[in-house]
Amino acid sequence: MIIRSAEPKDVSSILDLIIGLAVYENEPDQVDTTEEKLHHDLFIGKFCEALVAEHNGEVKAFTIYYTSYSTWKGPCIYLEDLFVLEDYRQTGIGSKLFECVVNVAKERGYARMDWQVLGWNKPAIEFYKKKNATLDAEWINGRLFFDGTDSK
Amino acid sequence: MIIRSAEPKDVSSILDLIIGLAVYENEPDQVDTTEEKLHHDLFIGKFCEALVAEHNGEVKAFTIYYTSYSTWKGPCIYLEDLFVLEDYRQTGIGSKLFECVVNVAKERGYARMDWQVLGWNKPAIEFYKKKNATLDAEWINGRLFFDGTDSK
Repeated sequence: MIIRSAEPKDVSSILDLIIGLAVYENEPDQVDTTEEKLHHDLFIGKFCEALVAEHNGEVKAFTIYYTSYSTWKGPCIYLEDLFVLEDYRQTGIGSKLFECVVNVAKERGYARMDWQVLGWNKPAIEFYKKKNATLDAEWINGRLFFDGTDSK
Repeated sequence: MIIRSAEPKDVSSILDLIIGLAVYENEPDQVDTTEEKLHHDLFIGKFCEALVAEHNGEVKAFTIYYTSYSTWKGPCIYLEDLFVLEDYRQTGIGSKLFECVVNVAKERGYARMDWQVLGWNKPAIEFYKKKNATLDAEWINGRLFFDGTDSK
């Protein structure tokens, strides 16, 4: 298993994994992005960055993250997605991807990395606990939608 | 009351308001930023943007936001801070600042704006409900710190 930065050739595989994660989260209809948009967001607009884990030339896991901001701490990394195909779970690849993003944050001198996990996603919560993460349910997420949806 | 983009001369006032918000949230020791860092983050690194509300030449309220990213929706606005000095609450200025950031998101063609509110902050929750926001407690926030703290 090789971990590397995503390249334009990976966009189709990454979109499949994004949809895979949405299905896992019981929100399969929420993925409004397309290969074209994702290509733009990663490589033209540079709104986010991605790492992929490749096995025998095929992408089996990925993570997408971006630079967020805290008025208390300064720039931070926000871990938007981290997903491993079912057959490749429990292999340590998710952990390696997570640590790669942690290292990106540290190398950039950022003070914090943030993410969210669904309250019912016990395997993910256990995973993050092993990383000594602070898991905080004190905050409620607010959202407004401008695209005609009122969904997540 | 005038709402305008923050300028370098506002950094000291904005820092005072950031500290005011941290005090309001019972976390006065969490503000690690300084005038120098905040100036850098707003005007050099451009990690975030700020609007201020000015009355008689003094900043009485502010908001800080940045471009975040959703793999489902594409680029979004994240509303990091919105704070009004106590004497200027219930004047509509917080609402106007909020709507200004909504308009930034819409003008940029973003599909969503996100933020967080503390579960005990009932006035803020009521404020956001009036904005027809989705308030979602299904997600738990995960955080890792790289600066020796294990705080928020």
